[in-house]
Amino acid sequence: MSFEFTKWQGTGNDFVLIDCMNRSEEPYVAAAQEICDRHYGIGADGILLVLPSDKADIRMRIINADGSEAEMCGNGIRCFARYVYEAGHVTGDAFTVETGAGILVPKIIKENGNISMIEVDMGEPVLEGDKIPVAGYGMNRVINEEIQVQGKTFKMTCVSMGNPHCVVFVEDAENFPIYELGRFFETHEKFPRKTNTEFVQVMDHQHLRMRVWERGAAVTLACGTGSCATLTAAVLNGLADRRAEVQLDGGRLVIEWNEQDNHLYMTGPALQVFSGTYPLQD
Amino acid sequence: MSFEFTKWQGTGNDFVLIDCMNRSEEPYVAAAQEICDRHYGIGADGILLVLPSDKADIRMRIINADGSEAEMCGNGIRCFARYVYEAGHVTGDAFTVETGAGILVPKIIKENGNISMIEVDMGEPVLEGDKIPVAGYGMNRVINEEIQVQGKTFKMTCVSMGNPHCVVFVEDAENFPIYELGRFFETHEKFPRKTNTEFVQVMDHQHLRMRVWERGAAVTLACGTGSCATLTAAVLNGLADRRAEVQLDGGRLVIEWNEQDNHLYMTGPALQVFSGTYPLQD
Repeated sequence: MSFEFTKWQGTGNDFVLIDCMNRSEEPYVAAAQEICDRHYGIGADGILLVLPSDKADIRMRIINADGSEAEMCGNGIRCFARYVYEAGHVTGDAFTVETGAGILVPKIIKENGNISMIEVDMGEPVLEGDKIPVAGYGMNRVINEEIQVQGKTFKMTCVSMGNPHCVVFVEDAENFPIYELGRFFETHEKFPRKTNTEFVQVMDHQHLRMRVWERGAAVTLACGTGSCATLTAAVLNGLADRRAEVQLDGGRLVIEWNEQDNHLYMTGPALQVFSGTYPLQD
Repeated sequence: MSFEFTKWQGTGNDFVLIDCMNRSEEPYVAAAQEICDRHYGIGADGILLVLPSDKADIRMRIINADGSEAEMCGNGIRCFARYVYEAGHVTGDAFTVETGAGILVPKIIKENGNISMIEVDMGEPVLEGDKIPVAGYGMNRVINEEIQVQGKTFKMTCVSMGNPHCVVFVEDAENFPIYELGRFFETHEKFPRKTNTEFVQVMDHQHLRMRVWERGAAVTLACGTGSCATLTAAVLNGLADRRAEVQLDGGRLVIEWNEQDNHLYMTGPALQVFSGTYPLQD
């Protein structure tokens, strides 16, 4: 059985997208590891499945390269949104998508009539220590607090975007020893569910340079929730405006912490890299 | 400008193949790094270009993922040969291919009328120490000679297949500390041009289990010239027949050291993984 697919990337996070509006997704879920293998398959961080929904305009499932299912992925939903809009599966520039993390509303942004970016409402940040969770702060916020890592003192600001983030402002993000120190933040006793850590250099109030150590994945090219946590932490410390650009290793995202609804909005690119046909073994 | 391609793998070594029989290859040579990028491009170890030849039936160029050109690649030419045969660019089961390492003659092997394997004449092994090169043996062969690495004594047999190989027979290839020791063989003072090293367990006279540390590339899934060096070394030590199967991390190759012409013949798979269309930026 052959199937057609498109290959996408959003700030370096890459996906095989398979349209299952008129066919069962089960063979693709079962074959996700084979499909994502970078030598023996198509190669990707995960597969995005386009499905009908009875709760929203359309439904997205994300299967990781290891075969597990992800609830949501900020880079993935931008690719998904652009595909379903261009394929005509949805009408209007904003539409509802059923995901494992609830119903989300991506929005297509155009420039001179062409799609330039996709905006995604990433929800409200959680700031209470016990809810992030960070040990020792109760229901207080954790803003510019000291943390000792490998005998050095850092200042952290902690935010949950559904997953825990520890944001550390540094003088020089490029030369920060992220590979040596990242793991010690991740497994620090202050984080009962471990943590993602963002090392952020403030260029000016509209530009932040961020590098990320992801929980369970080490250094990655981009992290959508980490970008939202970074902007939130920068605003709380008086270091950035409520709308700023975050420069990641894999590309740029614009993050806005909206004053009216308290939601974070992430705007970034989604690009189709190529299209193809793959002969799935029976 | 969009172009069509097919994606191939041979024992885990993977390639984007672009048919340039009727178009210039220059745009693809220039874009090789972009095309081979596993997140922002198609993703591959290299690209194979199919070209007309005035010296042979057809011509192959191989551009590595880093943009450099390779003279030859045993896994690549099998993929190339299967493609040009199936596309009807050549007639007959054996044909001549112009490569950077001279004219080679791959042969299509069929089983019940279907292509099962591709055979490639890999030429004659070079066994004189100075020609491999290995220091200290003059024009003598280097068979079952002692070498000290990190305070331990190993027995090596050395062979050049155009590039130097040091073959070491071990009790247990799976558990051999290849990641710790490989680099110390590569840079050992006995090898003035460094060396590839094969750690080989003899299962029986028709089955060898080989793992490889490639010069400049560390541990890889497969190495065609290394498989030929391994069979040659095993025959010279009375450990294998002149035709045996070599089990690599990435798959199996059958190697024959032909008694009549002294050439090594490598037979292995070549599989089209998928096909696609890629929009090259102007």
